[in-house]
Amino acid sequence: MTTPLRLGIAGLGTVGVGVVRIVQDHAAMLTLRTGRDVSIVAVSARDRARDRGVDLSGTAWEDDPVRLARRDDVDIFVELMGGSDGPAKAATEAALGAGKAVVTANKAMLALHGQALAELAEANGAPLRFEAAVAGGIPCIKALTEGLAGNAISRVSGVMNGTCNYILTRMESAGLPYADVFEEARQLGYLEADPTLDVGGIDAGHKLAILSAIAFGTQVDFEGVQLQGIERVSIDDIRRARDMGYRIKLLGEARRTDAGIEQSMRPTLVPVDSPLGQLEGGTNMVVIEGDAVGQIVLRGAGAGEGPTASAVMGDVCDIARGFTLPPFGQPAATLSRPVRANVATQCPHYLRMMLRDEPGALARVATVLGKSGVSIARMRQYDHTGDDAPVLIVTHPCAPGDLTAAIDGLAATGVVNGDPVALQIQTPA
Amino acid sequence: MTTPLRLGIAGLGTVGVGVVRIVQDHAAMLTLRTGRDVSIVAVSARDRARDRGVDLSGTAWEDDPVRLARRDDVDIFVELMGGSDGPAKAATEAALGAGKAVVTANKAMLALHGQALAELAEANGAPLRFEAAVAGGIPCIKALTEGLAGNAISRVSGVMNGTCNYILTRMESAGLPYADVFEEARQLGYLEADPTLDVGGIDAGHKLAILSAIAFGTQVDFEGVQLQGIERVSIDDIRRARDMGYRIKLLGEARRTDAGIEQSMRPTLVPVDSPLGQLEGGTNMVVIEGDAVGQIVLRGAGAGEGPTASAVMGDVCDIARGFTLPPFGQPAATLSRPVRANVATQCPHYLRMMLRDEPGALARVATVLGKSGVSIARMRQYDHTGDDAPVLIVTHPCAPGDLTAAIDGLAATGVVNGDPVALQIQTPA
Repeated sequence: MTTPLRLGIAGLGTVGVGVVRIVQDHAAMLTLRTGRDVSIVAVSARDRARDRGVDLSGTAWEDDPVRLARRDDVDIFVELMGGSDGPAKAATEAALGAGKAVVTANKAMLALHGQALAELAEANGAPLRFEAAVAGGIPCIKALTEGLAGNAISRVSGVMNGTCNYILTRMESAGLPYADVFEEARQLGYLEADPTLDVGGIDAGHKLAILSAIAFGTQVDFEGVQLQGIERVSIDDIRRARDMGYRIKLLGEARRTDAGIEQSMRPTLVPVDSPLGQLEGGTNMVVIEGDAVGQIVLRGAGAGEGPTASAVMGDVCDIARGFTLPPFGQPAATLSRPVRANVATQCPHYLRMMLRDEPGALARVATVLGKSGVSIARMRQYDHTGDDAPVLIVTHPCAPGDLTAAIDGLAATGVVNGDPVALQIQTPA
Repeated sequence: MTTPLRLGIAGLGTVGVGVVRIVQDHAAMLTLRTGRDVSIVAVSARDRARDRGVDLSGTAWEDDPVRLARRDDVDIFVELMGGSDGPAKAATEAALGAGKAVVTANKAMLALHGQALAELAEANGAPLRFEAAVAGGIPCIKALTEGLAGNAISRVSGVMNGTCNYILTRMESAGLPYADVFEEARQLGYLEADPTLDVGGIDAGHKLAILSAIAFGTQVDFEGVQLQGIERVSIDDIRRARDMGYRIKLLGEARRTDAGIEQSMRPTLVPVDSPLGQLEGGTNMVVIEGDAVGQIVLRGAGAGEGPTASAVMGDVCDIARGFTLPPFGQPAATLSRPVRANVATQCPHYLRMMLRDEPGALARVATVLGKSGVSIARMRQYDHTGDDAPVLIVTHPCAPGDLTAAIDGLAATGVVNGDPVALQIQTPA
């Protein structure tokens, strides 16, 4: 047996408590698997008095996470406070600066400061790992950086925000409007303190930006993610999409094209029977495409105490075993600045608009689409509601730019009320 | 840049050539990711003259793989010859004995000699890795040993033989009998030289035994796998199952129960719309259940040049990075001898039998089942074909022992012609 491995955990919310449970309940198993005794020597959290259901009596308490990160008896600083800046970042920098390993679940911090933190980690010879930051319990960062290290990756995609997926599936199953399900999710505690992080697609965008950087060997570029949240997805859209054999998912996609790196996170129609279409509630799915391996699909719980703690412990075990690799899979200095490319990959689209009840209206819509190079695959007009008739169109694959031009053209016709809703339709890879 | 990493590859079939291609085409990428130059210094294969479409002019040739394994200039011996014994085993032992790392795709060798090889590897401080031995390009061994190292695993299951899956899906889609599709598969080169390895479930059983050992920390126990091949699955079974909403897959399952370790590999009915039911052709799926993470599903190509070479290169990159862990995820000396448990987990079953055309026959079948504690959920009788009428029964969950007793009882009634076909039905985990 070699020297023990001592953890300092900052943040004792759901995930922190999950990590404590695993370390305490599986001590013998962890020693068998890593060759070292793993223990928790110190913790830090806001409320010292709260009963968290775990025994922390033998554990030192630090009020300041930066002090925790610098403690001489801490080998790995486990950062589970969250927040892209503030104490989480300060304490992470303190730990790395002191040459200590850091394991974190903090996607916002990595998405916004990943490059600087990776450089700091490498300069100090300190491991920085963050499997728990993306897709909860799914070991997708490990798959990308290690298992598929022999592949040039062309595309990474998936559903990475369980809360959005919960809201969208619940709207469909209960037939409830967005606002009602949003309120439900808030009461169930599924939403971040700032719910825009979830429903605006920001949280999922953070995760995608991290995967994209690893996949393509670029600096993490969250600003380059074309973001569209789920706030404008209506129960109508969900029902109409379903009528045509689709479900709506918040789908992220990062792709390497000749023009550069395309990153997008937006509501997307996927076939009901496809693996993505069947994803329920908080389940996440990550799809990786490499030149040798073809397509690899990984599915699992995207959040929650057990799954996220499992990912944290995977990183802890790797560090206990002495595995070292650069945080993004290759040295930070070799990560290139990504050339941002607007999403230009052609795909079919779903269009919903409210058409004025006047003669020739539909013909004018069809003409505008045709002139913009957008060809109609399927069209349905529904009963009038007042003066409007909902019209649904599924296009043949078209360039996003042509679609944007077509939508601008529709406004000019005067026969469309309000803004059309346009969503991409995923074609199977 | 540190010292280069030099590979010696024994076996230049499909996978070996795939490895050569990755090393040659992605040299710069591999150096970036591992910090070392990876090169192939020597190879060995049966036919030196054959054109394999890759340039091996700068590479030494050894006729004897054991000599290759012992070469001073080889750091990793890559064993891609196959065969549980003979040259593959001799060369692997030679490499490990010389303290050299071994990467292999050889499931038969690992399933039958895994314990001895792991002990030899550990005694010599030599890494022994075999991601490519299970489920082709899917990094499932890495997920189990590393990503999910914080979990007590309760169950590992999946579809792990692409050839069987091809035969079963092709029988359904083309409406062809087993013998015809078997012959097709042979002509397409999908079958092993000894086709029983595939259709008898042996190859898949090898893979399951390896995953089971890792998951439960036991010595690999291929003899403990309850094996049933697909040879007796008829086009009738496939059609009838489909009528009732199921597909038939060769499904492996390893489970830890209070009685010990259950391992089985057998044709199983799965819901058509489930992820397993949707698996087409050569695609594999591995499902892992851990106490913290819940269920993780991994899907990808189970064989072929690129996917298998991808898995080999994942192991090579890990070794290049200096990662070391025991071959089965914990020291070989700590792997316990597994207590074999007969599969006792209750599940519904599909029963097909030919019933004699005589009054009261169906009643007698129902009575025998009832007396054995097997309760009927659904029953269908089809038109007579000659003197027989096919009868299909779906049972409520029952113990396999009760079902066996019931089938014995059916033979004694005299109203059933031939042996009934009994297949388990998977209930969603």
